[in-house]
Amino acid sequence: MPLSRIKAIAFDADDTLWVNETLFREAEREFCVLMQDYLPADRCNELLFAMEMKNLPLYGYGIKPFTLSLIEAAIEFSDGTVPIATIETLIARCKRMLEAPLELIDGIEETLAVLSKKYRVVMATKGDLLDQERKLIKSGLEPYFHHIEIVSDKTEVHYQKLVNHLDISVEEFLMVGNSVKSDILPVLAIGGHGFHIPFHTTWIHEIVKEPVEHPNFRLLSSATEMLELL
Amino acid sequence: MPLSRIKAIAFDADDTLWVNETLFREAEREFCVLMQDYLPADRCNELLFAMEMKNLPLYGYGIKPFTLSLIEAAIEFSDGTVPIATIETLIARCKRMLEAPLELIDGIEETLAVLSKKYRVVMATKGDLLDQERKLIKSGLEPYFHHIEIVSDKTEVHYQKLVNHLDISVEEFLMVGNSVKSDILPVLAIGGHGFHIPFHTTWIHEIVKEPVEHPNFRLLSSATEMLELL
Repeated sequence: MPLSRIKAIAFDADDTLWVNETLFREAEREFCVLMQDYLPADRCNELLFAMEMKNLPLYGYGIKPFTLSLIEAAIEFSDGTVPIATIETLIARCKRMLEAPLELIDGIEETLAVLSKKYRVVMATKGDLLDQERKLIKSGLEPYFHHIEIVSDKTEVHYQKLVNHLDISVEEFLMVGNSVKSDILPVLAIGGHGFHIPFHTTWIHEIVKEPVEHPNFRLLSSATEMLELL
Repeated sequence: MPLSRIKAIAFDADDTLWVNETLFREAEREFCVLMQDYLPADRCNELLFAMEMKNLPLYGYGIKPFTLSLIEAAIEFSDGTVPIATIETLIARCKRMLEAPLELIDGIEETLAVLSKKYRVVMATKGDLLDQERKLIKSGLEPYFHHIEIVSDKTEVHYQKLVNHLDISVEEFLMVGNSVKSDILPVLAIGGHGFHIPFHTTWIHEIVKEPVEHPNFRLLSSATEMLELL
């Protein structure tokens, strides 16, 4: 399918528009330091990941679910002996994370400025709407987006709904993101286009090992490379 | 504006489709029992409400923000002396609330079954998408809805976006909900129609004192009354 047919471009938000994973990884590192009296850091990381995975179907993605998992982990890892001050620290950290300033991904603003003139550009994210809207406004990128599409999960079914919602056919749809698993594979599977722009930190949950080979797929090293293709 | 022009009907979700506030009010009552060693129940309720209001702009609506506020309140109200087991109880309660079975509002299913054949029916909610989607599926009402519209807040600006999104003019839009403040007033203000179906428990934050008088407004005692009007 030629790229000339593209009508709408959806951008993933976290780690595609702005830095995000780094904040979670830092929070996890700090958490495992807080837990060092109870278990070694690598074991803490491992068990914390398992806790997050266990809670994911119920809690979903974002800073608030993450914080609830940290609190649960602190209690479980310490066998209920963690001081209440540690819980207070985790709540305070949650608020700091929600309020943290945003760091834009290199080249994203100039890329959006050009593409938003030629295409319908939307943001497609599986985070919490209030958080993501706040981040979009804080980022200064809001004027480039037609609207936000919040999806509860990034599966083929959800992308098909998104495409229907945009009133285009799937071969006119391009998804851009840093996660092969969430942003690329399901879109290719339903017949859309996917541009993968990797971010240096990728959550272990999102890692897909095999390189993608597909006529509708491109691996880019930065957002500005999109301008040579579109 | 005549009701005959209506093309799309948006339903609020919590306490319009299914019972919700009751669960939060019960959780608050139980929380204040847990806190009885530290402060009397009425004072606990008052301070908890203040805590929820303080956190609302940062946290948004839903069970997870509510739980984070309960944890913060437990620590603050007890001056940091609350046992860690209480925090554990609050996390467990959060999970129970997220998994709780749904109780449909009387008459809502038969009303939706009829209206969804004649109108585009959407769900418009300011909750957390994952929670609301799970509830919609659990409720069995999903087949009646064209799609879900998640709004981060229910203000005039957000309703105008919703109407644009539906590709209709505002006088073709009807909002149905249990909250005058969130579901009715902003919709009337931009020129839409509003049907108010009160729920017996309304959160103090949502209460508007003056009765509404507006040609585009109807106060109904149950969902099935809609079928006589549309």
